[in-house]
Amino acid sequence: MAKHEYIINRRVEFNETDMAGIVHFSNFFRYMEYAEHAFFRSLGHSIVDPDLGVGWPRVHCNCDYNHPLMFEDEVEIHMLISAKTSKTMSYQFRFRKDGTEVARGNVTIVCVRRNKVGEMKSTRIPPEIADIFEVAPADKLAD
Amino acid sequence: MAKHEYIINRRVEFNETDMAGIVHFSNFFRYMEYAEHAFFRSLGHSIVDPDLGVGWPRVHCNCDYNHPLMFEDEVEIHMLISAKTSKTMSYQFRFRKDGTEVARGNVTIVCVRRNKVGEMKSTRIPPEIADIFEVAPADKLAD
Amino acid sequence: MAKHEYIINRRVEFNETDMAGIVHFSNFFRYMEYAEHAFFRSLGHSIVDPDLGVGWPRVHCNCDYNHPLMFEDEVEIHMLISAKTSKTMSYQFRFRKDGTEVARGNVTIVCVRRNKVGEMKSTRIPPEIADIFEVAPADKLAD
Amino acid sequence: MAKHEYIINRRVEFNETDMAGIVHFSNFFRYMEYAEHAFFRSLGHSIVDPDLGVGWPRVHCNCDYNHPLMFEDEVEIHMLISAKTSKTMSYQFRFRKDGTEVARGNVTIVCVRRNKVGEMKSTRIPPEIADIFEVAPADKLAD
Repeated sequence: MAKHEYIINRRVEFNETDMAGIVHFSNFFRYMEYAEHAFFRSLGHSIVDPDLGVGWPRVHCNCDYNHPLMFEDEVEIHMLISAKTSKTMSYQFRFRKDGTEVARGNVTIVCVRRNKVGEMKSTRIPPEIADIFEVAPADKLAD
Repeated sequence: MAKHEYIINRRVEFNETDMAGIVHFSNFFRYMEYAEHAFFRSLGHSIVDPDLGVGWPRVHCNCDYNHPLMFEDEVEIHMLISAKTSKTMSYQFRFRKDGTEVARGNVTIVCVRRNKVGEMKSTRIPPEIADIFEVAPADKLAD
Repeated sequence: MAKHEYIINRRVEFNETDMAGIVHFSNFFRYMEYAEHAFFRSLGHSIVDPDLGVGWPRVHCNCDYNHPLMFEDEVEIHMLISAKTSKTMSYQFRFRKDGTEVARGNVTIVCVRRNKVGEMKSTRIPPEIADIFEVAPADKLAD
Repeated sequence: MAKHEYIINRRVEFNETDMAGIVHFSNFFRYMEYAEHAFFRSLGHSIVDPDLGVGWPRVHCNCDYNHPLMFEDEVEIHMLISAKTSKTMSYQFRFRKDGTEVARGNVTIVCVRRNKVGEMKSTRIPPEIADIFEVAPADKLAD
């Protein structure tokens, strides 16, 4: 059964804060990746799989911030598959603290293989991965 | 004379790479901030100015990646002021390596003051800062 | 009952690796702090406590590395209180993967208060914190 | 002519600070590495050299902190070669701000090659690297 969403919690660490006393905005992208990789593991896979031999560089990302996160805040990261093509996947991420959405972001990744000179070239997502994810229903994504 | 653009170079550091052998995508946002703060300094200011008493949280950011950056690559960061309101500023960032654009991103910041209970509330950008930046010409931004 | 040790697990994240394919050595210090703060929480405290009004800068740290850690490795962090004075605490950290010690480090922190001009000055550890930790038995530390 | 020391400056970046308003202690190790790699470059080499095919994992590091560093502080990093064996090199690092030493640290690296199953095994430092560095005079190191 393909899955379209995943939820994981994470507690803000001291080194993730900056002198403004809040989580540095760049760390939300690390949080997104944290959720993505846990989603893969929850389906019995790893995003780094030598047998598949593909990589997943990010080609786009964005984030909108509504409320700051602070040290030891427990944040819920809700990840949804927002789009899928033969070579790319797009994710939506919602960050909630005590039920309030504090940030929302998106990431698009592309499946690549290295060519003979080591350059990354886009390639079809292997079925082992393509088949375990499905795009979330439109109404969920629009929420 | 208000300024609308700034260029600074930076060399990729080892700790900024990941096991894929390229700069981790989240670091581009640190690079953007690096350029922003150097732009402020180049105009005789610091983004952290106790006399002004304002903060500048980020409310939006995004980045599109065309080519990876690798260890010791020298990257040129070209920052343009893309929009200005009474309380916000938006930046465009272009990353170039050997003349080729490898990534392009945007950041919007909002000027805030802390209220009595420590919450950040948006406020007018002090003239000391508002007056030194101007929006870049439309054709430059559209380039 | 004062406590002298704490164990917590953590999974290596992608952004913590570098182009050598292993966890960047500086991240072990973030892992140590992660364990320290969880130890505080496990005893009903936070290392950031506005009621106490003290800070805990690090005055010494070190780490010896025996084996690399890789992406998605699950590492056990074993933290022991190795020394305590009226103003400082020292910790020993042992990192294990599949039962094998991969690294061992130490951190010494000092309790400080800000003086009127904002400088950090060492101060006695408040009893609320001093009383919940005790030095681990010598044979455990020597192990 | 082999060299035994190198000095480079660096300005503290916003994301390197934490909620205590000072540079997070783990970042001093990133600063050390920054100086090391610039030292290599200053001698016409890169610490990542495919022709040599060796790696340089860190096997020990430590740091003592005397004074905090803050945003936009300009710190001078003074690196000295403190020891050299056939397979390892040790460095001493002194951090100065406005002439005052704020921190001092050490790092030991070991030269490795990957064996057939990808494990890192210690190996002799290639002469191309061994010959360009020499241990600093004892009185300089003891200073």
